[in-house]
Amino acid sequence: MSNAGDAARSWSRSQSAQFQEELFEMLRIPSLSGDPAFAGDVRRMAEWLANHMAGLGLEKVAVMETAGHPVVYGEWMGAGEDAPTLLVYGHYDVVPAVMEDGWETDPFEPVVKDGKVFARGSTDDKGQLFIHIKALQAWLETAGAAPINVKILLEGEEEVSSPNLAPFIKEHLDLLRADVCVISDSSMTRIEEPAITHSLRGMTYIEVHVEGPREDLHSGFFGGATHNPALALAEIITKLFNEDNSIAVPGFYDDVAPLSDADRAMIAKTDISADEFKQATGVPGVWGVEAFTIKERVSARPTLEINGMWSGYTGPGPKTIIPHSAGAKISCRLVGNQDPERIWECLRDYIESIAPPTVKVSVSLLSTGRPALFPAELPAMRAAVRAYEKGWGHTPVFTRGGGSIPIVADIADMMSIPVVMMGYGLDSDGLHSPNEHYSLEMFARGIETAIVYLEELASL
Amino acid sequence: MSNAGDAARSWSRSQSAQFQEELFEMLRIPSLSGDPAFAGDVRRMAEWLANHMAGLGLEKVAVMETAGHPVVYGEWMGAGEDAPTLLVYGHYDVVPAVMEDGWETDPFEPVVKDGKVFARGSTDDKGQLFIHIKALQAWLETAGAAPINVKILLEGEEEVSSPNLAPFIKEHLDLLRADVCVISDSSMTRIEEPAITHSLRGMTYIEVHVEGPREDLHSGFFGGATHNPALALAEIITKLFNEDNSIAVPGFYDDVAPLSDADRAMIAKTDISADEFKQATGVPGVWGVEAFTIKERVSARPTLEINGMWSGYTGPGPKTIIPHSAGAKISCRLVGNQDPERIWECLRDYIESIAPPTVKVSVSLLSTGRPALFPAELPAMRAAVRAYEKGWGHTPVFTRGGGSIPIVADIADMMSIPVVMMGYGLDSDGLHSPNEHYSLEMFARGIETAIVYLEELASL
Repeated sequence: MSNAGDAARSWSRSQSAQFQEELFEMLRIPSLSGDPAFAGDVRRMAEWLANHMAGLGLEKVAVMETAGHPVVYGEWMGAGEDAPTLLVYGHYDVVPAVMEDGWETDPFEPVVKDGKVFARGSTDDKGQLFIHIKALQAWLETAGAAPINVKILLEGEEEVSSPNLAPFIKEHLDLLRADVCVISDSSMTRIEEPAITHSLRGMTYIEVHVEGPREDLHSGFFGGATHNPALALAEIITKLFNEDNSIAVPGFYDDVAPLSDADRAMIAKTDISADEFKQATGVPGVWGVEAFTIKERVSARPTLEINGMWSGYTGPGPKTIIPHSAGAKISCRLVGNQDPERIWECLRDYIESIAPPTVKVSVSLLSTGRPALFPAELPAMRAAVRAYEKGWGHTPVFTRGGGSIPIVADIADMMSIPVVMMGYGLDSDGLHSPNEHYSLEMFARGIETAIVYLEELASL
Repeated sequence: MSNAGDAARSWSRSQSAQFQEELFEMLRIPSLSGDPAFAGDVRRMAEWLANHMAGLGLEKVAVMETAGHPVVYGEWMGAGEDAPTLLVYGHYDVVPAVMEDGWETDPFEPVVKDGKVFARGSTDDKGQLFIHIKALQAWLETAGAAPINVKILLEGEEEVSSPNLAPFIKEHLDLLRADVCVISDSSMTRIEEPAITHSLRGMTYIEVHVEGPREDLHSGFFGGATHNPALALAEIITKLFNEDNSIAVPGFYDDVAPLSDADRAMIAKTDISADEFKQATGVPGVWGVEAFTIKERVSARPTLEINGMWSGYTGPGPKTIIPHSAGAKISCRLVGNQDPERIWECLRDYIESIAPPTVKVSVSLLSTGRPALFPAELPAMRAAVRAYEKGWGHTPVFTRGGGSIPIVADIADMMSIPVVMMGYGLDSDGLHSPNEHYSLEMFARGIETAIVYLEELASL
């Protein structure tokens, strides 16, 4: 580590109160991308970031339009044409959060308890994306320059599967040109074992609608001769699985590459026990396909989940209707060589084939995202290992992420560059859950690691 | 028909505009018994009825407290101790209704179109119970007296299965003592074929809750090893039925008396075709147990319906969670000798026996109601036939009601009197559905029939 790097790290520690206050400003903006009612807040978040980056001296700073929520862009190119260029990707949108879901404090009013800030988006991904902005600021403030060029690309639709980012990248390939992309939107099991994610699951997200009678019926007058849409939906959902909990959709597993012994050995290093899984989730028992370990099931194997289900009357007390319809949100996590479009066709064809003639069943596609995999031997990956060792204080492990960052595969394919996923969150941060939180110590260490990473990339 | 009866009928016709305006006042009160938020409106409805009956000269008029919503009582005993006494039962509460369910006009602002009034409660049961009050008023206004004594008992909890009416009746057996009970809370297929219901289905209404993880989980991090509560619920619901659509709950059919050839022949007289059923409901196909006709399935056989089902995220767009819980409202229509308490035990035991160890399943009882059956040969039934012939203009048929009026069996048992169910609604009125409506011509004919019925009962 250079003296300049040490100075940047030291300065970043001195600014922690200020950096936290800025982060809290971001967390107060409910930038929910999935609900049109919050579109104004999403834009307000984008404008806050653009103003902030412009204030730090970045150039070409702009809130750039897409067919959906805007992209925020800014760059610092002062290292010159011969220096490497890093593209930082992050997302400033969040998933829904309301007190009724079980939050102990307002999800959009950050509260610090035990060194953690509690708020929606604190770890996913506002707290993590901000690390890179603060690292660049530290270099500019202390050395007047960063070791390499840095481009920052922040999107507002990651939580709705980034429908407009791939077209945006395709349209702005020149603007975004870089040698490597870094993304901090993942997590580690414990602070002593930081993780570089080299694999992500893809996704196919669908909705199934079952329509029965043209309106809700009195169950006493029509019950017994009407196929209850909630029952018909339950039958369809049940038929998506085999007896052994594997997925019954024909063709679903066709393109899944089997896990090699080496793959399974690497995954086994981070396996968790049934007791640990029950402790972490609160479930009374572990579920799934017996042939695979828990860690394999949640990271290296494809899944199918019911994300939501609805039908009929759900208010207090009894209401004796046959509901006129029922619906479900269903999403698959995909791995290996699975193609989300092909999986969509498999799901649609199968559900249509098992739809009973006594109701009307329709299936629609909400979104897709491709899986991704990068070798741990790449130079940018080794640089990330060194950055963690120096900036964080611990050697990282390589892991497979069970979640999806749809754009990772797109960036790799369209820009022909590796994507290094340097997680700064904890598995237990509760992202997408009530009481999401983020460790302020990890926020500070992340900034220092990101400071080091810029210098490590300069020496490649 | 006596001259006095003719005068009462003639006067009732002359008052139709006034009677309708009074009915509309009732329909404007959203007396939802199932939602605690409307408890004030339920009481307002009770007070309106008490004030109205007192204004007509009834005695002992009172809003009488129960453990839930109040009972309204009033009587006219001027016919003397030797005259028969008729107990009129009706209910002034309604099921929920909101525009979003598909109402074309405000469900609590009555609108007249094509001779029908559209409003929640118009046919079930405000429009029908009011017929008896207006019939009594017509006698008192024109003859100064009715042919028999009349007691009126109106409850506010029929739509939540009358949890407090049986205790109320038990406590007030002396006050309520009568020779026959009439209830108008049922319907006919067409105006030319009025129907006396001599059988009703009972009910067992339960809720099933499935709890998985302690809070919603990120499907990417825990999917594959967590039993999705929505899937677990779907599996439980599916297992409630056999392949032939009969109910798979052990013991469920044990007490159902088989239908005799005579029973089936009587039911066949009012059977409907598959096309008629599809036309009436809008379903693409008829469902059910093939061994029984459509009419048998919807009126003479027990059923199991999913009235509501919920889990996870149901808002716009995708949200990639594993829901922490799922639930369903499930109700059975019961016939013959089925005991609702025994059916509750069968349901609970079976669901608990099939609950997987990977989730926590709980079953709770919401309400019960016993089935009822009365012979068509009873004198009070024959009097009802004559009342329809003279007052309505058509000979009635005897039918089995697929719906439930929980209190009918209780009145018959506790008071040892027959219950005559003289329906004044149409099957197509859409009760419990959006755009519930009631024919104003049938309202007028119903009042005339009820006027005649008082006279017919006097001659028994």
